[in-house]
Amino acid sequence: MKINVLSLFPPMFEGVFNQSMMKKAQEKGAVSFAVSDFRDYADNKRQVDDYPFGGGAGMVLKPEPVFNAVEALSGEGKPRVILMCPQGERFTQKKAEELAKEDELIFICGHYEGYDERIREHLVTDEISIGDFVLTGGELAAMTVIDSVVRLLPGVLGNADSPVKDSFSTGFLEHPQYTRPADYRGWKVPDVLTSGNHGKVDKWREEQTLKRTLERRPDLLEKIELTDAQKKILDDLKNRK
Amino acid sequence: MKINVLSLFPPMFEGVFNQSMMKKAQEKGAVSFAVSDFRDYADNKRQVDDYPFGGGAGMVLKPEPVFNAVEALSGEGKPRVILMCPQGERFTQKKAEELAKEDELIFICGHYEGYDERIREHLVTDEISIGDFVLTGGELAAMTVIDSVVRLLPGVLGNADSPVKDSFSTGFLEHPQYTRPADYRGWKVPDVLTSGNHGKVDKWREEQTLKRTLERRPDLLEKIELTDAQKKILDDLKNRK
Repeated sequence: MKINVLSLFPPMFEGVFNQSMMKKAQEKGAVSFAVSDFRDYADNKRQVDDYPFGGGAGMVLKPEPVFNAVEALSGEGKPRVILMCPQGERFTQKKAEELAKEDELIFICGHYEGYDERIREHLVTDEISIGDFVLTGGELAAMTVIDSVVRLLPGVLGNADSPVKDSFSTGFLEHPQYTRPADYRGWKVPDVLTSGNHGKVDKWREEQTLKRTLERRPDLLEKIELTDAQKKILDDLKNRK
Repeated sequence: MKINVLSLFPPMFEGVFNQSMMKKAQEKGAVSFAVSDFRDYADNKRQVDDYPFGGGAGMVLKPEPVFNAVEALSGEGKPRVILMCPQGERFTQKKAEELAKEDELIFICGHYEGYDERIREHLVTDEISIGDFVLTGGELAAMTVIDSVVRLLPGVLGNADSPVKDSFSTGFLEHPQYTRPADYRGWKVPDVLTSGNHGKVDKWREEQTLKRTLERRPDLLEKIELTDAQKKILDDLKNRK
């Protein structure tokens, strides 16, 4: 996969793209990154924003530098062009899986300013928001989306079944996990986990998975087709309350 | 505000903390950052994770290095200790406003692994998730939360009323914005915005704000106490469909 990013602050991406999974994904040839300053695609004065028509506070990103940059970087293909913005669709794991099938992605990251509406209407294919909170720019949102997409590319994660078992891939929140020491400051690991009885461990984990999801994110349970066994566990949990 | 971050990949934060708003916020003395590798707080072998009790794939972060690091960094105060994890409460602008009132925050970022449950039970004050998607680690989630908090600190943003008008601060999505040129490739700015009639501009913007929110995020409208005028505009929009 080829990922192009347009930003006014390319150095923001250096630390994130050159560490950990993202670094390994590049070394394995699964992805290549290029971060461009779209100021380089503006007119002589390198001006990328201007006052909004109709007045008001704040600046608005001009259409030309963004159109010019996207067109210069697109080449022959028709890459998905993704605008990071609060008005976009809410990013989910399903969207990550969809984007992971593409050969090429372009991310547009504004900073401080709004975007001229013609960028939305005539240039971008996807508008994405990572959540209902205000960020200084689209950069961290883009890095977040990129991380979640790149880790799904074939060959990137060592353990082949790792991506499948994560929270949100299964639809449930994960059960509690414990590791050594079995007693830390007097806080002990549940006996079942040290019992060596795999059947009991599996049963405890399934119950804990459902319990945690019920307590913290009951909305997730509505989206999952539950087995009869899971329904029974949930009923028991609700009755115990 | 003092922000401590615990991570196994401190260099991930360099680009983000040394650019743009975050850089300026430090220069203005509004915030200071320290990123620590909690491997430095592990035992002699610098081992931070171990196999899960009860078996299964993946590793689990051990309690000691995380407890040791948080306790070493906390000093006299009782800082909020924030665990970035998919099971946490969903991050919102309201939570950003709450955290912006603190003097000190500690962020714990796991990577790949799960956390030993005793970290959740006995050390952290807040568990936060930025959304229903899987990330390689908590680092990008922490940077996202930190960006949204730091920009709210007094004196950080130049324009005093900038934070107030953003999407999610008002509860609505923002209306479309346009800047020069008025005609770009034949795509023209709406006449009302170049009319010079401020009353009409304000009316158009309010209608567009409601229209965009209705089309893209009708769930947001349910959380807002609407004025009678706004209710009428929404009714008209729904009837026009």
